[in-house]
Amino acid sequence: MTDHQPPRIVDINCDLGEGFGNWVMGADADIMPLITTANVACGFHGGDPVIMGRTVELADQHGVVVGAHPGFHDLEGFGRRMIPLDPEEVAAIITYQVGALTGFLTARNMPLHHVKPHGAFYAYLRDNETAGAAAAAAVHRIAPETLVYWPAPAQGAAFCEELGALGHQVITEIYPDLSYSPEGKLIIQRRKLKTDLAFASSQVKRFLTEGVVAAEDGTPIRHEASSVCIHSDGPNAVDVAHTVRAAITEVGSSIAAIGA
Amino acid sequence: MTDHQPPRIVDINCDLGEGFGNWVMGADADIMPLITTANVACGFHGGDPVIMGRTVELADQHGVVVGAHPGFHDLEGFGRRMIPLDPEEVAAIITYQVGALTGFLTARNMPLHHVKPHGAFYAYLRDNETAGAAAAAAVHRIAPETLVYWPAPAQGAAFCEELGALGHQVITEIYPDLSYSPEGKLIIQRRKLKTDLAFASSQVKRFLTEGVVAAEDGTPIRHEASSVCIHSDGPNAVDVAHTVRAAITEVGSSIAAIGA
Amino acid sequence: MTDHQPPRIVDINCDLGEGFGNWVMGADADIMPLITTANVACGFHGGDPVIMGRTVELADQHGVVVGAHPGFHDLEGFGRRMIPLDPEEVAAIITYQVGALTGFLTARNMPLHHVKPHGAFYAYLRDNETAGAAAAAAVHRIAPETLVYWPAPAQGAAFCEELGALGHQVITEIYPDLSYSPEGKLIIQRRKLKTDLAFASSQVKRFLTEGVVAAEDGTPIRHEASSVCIHSDGPNAVDVAHTVRAAITEVGSSIAAIGA
Amino acid sequence: MTDHQPPRIVDINCDLGEGFGNWVMGADADIMPLITTANVACGFHGGDPVIMGRTVELADQHGVVVGAHPGFHDLEGFGRRMIPLDPEEVAAIITYQVGALTGFLTARNMPLHHVKPHGAFYAYLRDNETAGAAAAAAVHRIAPETLVYWPAPAQGAAFCEELGALGHQVITEIYPDLSYSPEGKLIIQRRKLKTDLAFASSQVKRFLTEGVVAAEDGTPIRHEASSVCIHSDGPNAVDVAHTVRAAITEVGSSIAAIGA
Repeated sequence: MTDHQPPRIVDINCDLGEGFGNWVMGADADIMPLITTANVACGFHGGDPVIMGRTVELADQHGVVVGAHPGFHDLEGFGRRMIPLDPEEVAAIITYQVGALTGFLTARNMPLHHVKPHGAFYAYLRDNETAGAAAAAAVHRIAPETLVYWPAPAQGAAFCEELGALGHQVITEIYPDLSYSPEGKLIIQRRKLKTDLAFASSQVKRFLTEGVVAAEDGTPIRHEASSVCIHSDGPNAVDVAHTVRAAITEVGSSIAAIGA
Repeated sequence: MTDHQPPRIVDINCDLGEGFGNWVMGADADIMPLITTANVACGFHGGDPVIMGRTVELADQHGVVVGAHPGFHDLEGFGRRMIPLDPEEVAAIITYQVGALTGFLTARNMPLHHVKPHGAFYAYLRDNETAGAAAAAAVHRIAPETLVYWPAPAQGAAFCEELGALGHQVITEIYPDLSYSPEGKLIIQRRKLKTDLAFASSQVKRFLTEGVVAAEDGTPIRHEASSVCIHSDGPNAVDVAHTVRAAITEVGSSIAAIGA
Repeated sequence: MTDHQPPRIVDINCDLGEGFGNWVMGADADIMPLITTANVACGFHGGDPVIMGRTVELADQHGVVVGAHPGFHDLEGFGRRMIPLDPEEVAAIITYQVGALTGFLTARNMPLHHVKPHGAFYAYLRDNETAGAAAAAAVHRIAPETLVYWPAPAQGAAFCEELGALGHQVITEIYPDLSYSPEGKLIIQRRKLKTDLAFASSQVKRFLTEGVVAAEDGTPIRHEASSVCIHSDGPNAVDVAHTVRAAITEVGSSIAAIGA
Repeated sequence: MTDHQPPRIVDINCDLGEGFGNWVMGADADIMPLITTANVACGFHGGDPVIMGRTVELADQHGVVVGAHPGFHDLEGFGRRMIPLDPEEVAAIITYQVGALTGFLTARNMPLHHVKPHGAFYAYLRDNETAGAAAAAAVHRIAPETLVYWPAPAQGAAFCEELGALGHQVITEIYPDLSYSPEGKLIIQRRKLKTDLAFASSQVKRFLTEGVVAAEDGTPIRHEASSVCIHSDGPNAVDVAHTVRAAITEVGSSIAAIGA
């Protein structure tokens, strides 16, 4: 534990493009200039074809790399309700969503940077080994070179272990705008609440200098990670983005996209 | 008109993969061995991710080439109700659907063979020049080499003319299971009716030997075409497929996919 | 156990109206004349407004009483995938669906006969006491006189116990086209399989004469019930309906709707 | 025209409850205390069961009367894209949506005050006589006593004329937050723009004192009306509501729900 080396370079990834039709979600235009890496909703829990096209264009304008953010097909639940799927369904909804987003990237000559499961779909892949393995195989077939993003820790997650074994780079991330259980598990909110900016700053700084984040009861959780993730749908998401940037800079680390 | 040369080689393309969830539409497994070319629904008017994956797999097993069959986002209307869209929406729903299908093809190392608009979306692109041009640009950006299928005639359709000018091969097709207006326009049915097999056979043979099909009032319509299209959702679709194959063989033409 | 009195009058209820748009599900027109009681899908797992109107009209023509068959909002999963909901969501989806069906009944001067939860929603209400209580309260507020249908046994189900306490008549039913676990629990199929007609006949007769049905391992399960339920989406649903009618008649019981 | 008597009592109705899942639309809680009459979205273009329940509860708390606001089934287009429907479909989507909303009202012992078609569905019923007549018949069957709201003018609209002949009270309304064509037709915006408050105030005052509103080119349009309608999804909707209230008060009229 004493040998922790804070990462000198950190990326900031953010879930974006989560509006639907006339409904707005998140201050995408304000957040895009503040991040390095966008996880773009693919129409199943948020996003629609027009919004996906606009979000990819906005990312392109700001030099932000783009990954697919597939979720359960559950607009009413914003992808934050668990829906049990069999492995064929898991593979199919990944292939469909990653394919759809790749279409928008191809149309602009942009590469698919990564794949990152959304919300309850992430939790399902984490907790269900068969589903995680099916998802990993699907990602590898459609995007054999892609990076994979995952909330730390990656250990024990079939999704990460199988993709790692197939040669994919697995990027783990910490969340300054969510809580951790004392066991280190990320706690998914059904609807994003306002983030305490001092807490967010403290989490980022402690992670960068000591390699730990605090659980909701204060327990220090040691996480290996090289990315910081924020959500665009929180009520003070833009402030969180500014806070995270400041915290990274204050401890002397740099902000840059990974492998771009 | 006297110089008509019947095509020596004809492909048979069919709209497939149009079930949704537990709902079945079309005898895909029976039809696939009888065709050369599948137009696979992309989840907007029919099809879902699991069905798309299975349909692409079935085509692969039978050596059938696969194209995307994008439609309006209208499950209740099966893509056969007109929904006016602005050009950005037109481009976005094509990019999304073609991208999603390409995902399933990529996962099996299969190329995207063609793009063919479905039902009322076809009629909208035919009748609305701005929409047709937006659709053509979207197809070209996402699939710069793809073939394009279109009910004959292609002349006057901005979609076909722009894609042709960009170097795409435009394949026109005749329909033995639909009627033509005396002006030669294809008449879209809201729900497929049973096809008269003798009529279907006669349309195919007359097209192959004389280059014409009969309109609903008997008027002969001269159409340039190199493909015959059938629908999988008709009540006697498998019989139609057998009838079309027999008609092609009887006049001495061959059946093969185009450019495969 | 020796004091079992077979019910002299049994109703036959059936899940109907489960098509969607152009997609057909179940031979509704053939089944309607064979049943007394229809559970009509309300658009969330199957059914759409046009199909609901036609199904209610068909029931009216055949003197069949109509109940609402609310399910999870999950067309792709046909309401047979569990989606965890909070109590407010449970109450709201019942109110919405029962209200919508009541609209079609009101338009024909027909009363709402009963409410019966569908598929995985039934299983969720059975297994989750808070959800069951929320559902019961919602049913009572919107339809304070309605009957309630429920797969036997009703004991232990908060939904049934609360509605019973509020004065609602709870009708329990046995299923000749589904299996029971040795503990007597109904086993929901994701997609209906073909029913063994001899088995279906035997289950109905044994239930009527001895008061028991056989579990999948042969264990006799004693169930209090006064209704027999069949599904319209099975591949031989019409044959099942005829078989059930014959079995009831053979043991000397009568077939009639309850309380109509 | 010289005999215009400004209405002494005016109601203010507003389209509300238009969020969906996690997506917010409109400051419902701020607007509800400022209006007399709520047109509640029924889940087809906006609204979902949870939001409908909460909106009805909020109206109840503020003594606001509630009507159904049925629209096309088009979440992505917010019900502002025209979808051609046959008369059976028109009747069915009205019956379904009015029924669903009535469910939430019944659960709180509130009456259905009125029915008012939304967005492009209103325009479709206005411009298509067969559709308008089918809609009128459907409303009458499900709610034989209900009031009907309609943008002025009602003359020439089959929907209003048939319902009027059946004894329904037709309330016409003017729109201070939308423009009129020189022919007096309301111009539907695909997405609500910011309203000029001085213009809104002027439209209301001129209507109340002279019986006319100004078209977009300044032409005075004479409209019979007894209600003022505002939209909750505009960017300054709360300000519009305050402005309208002030304008009504300034000319000496009163604000009250109709027939409540």
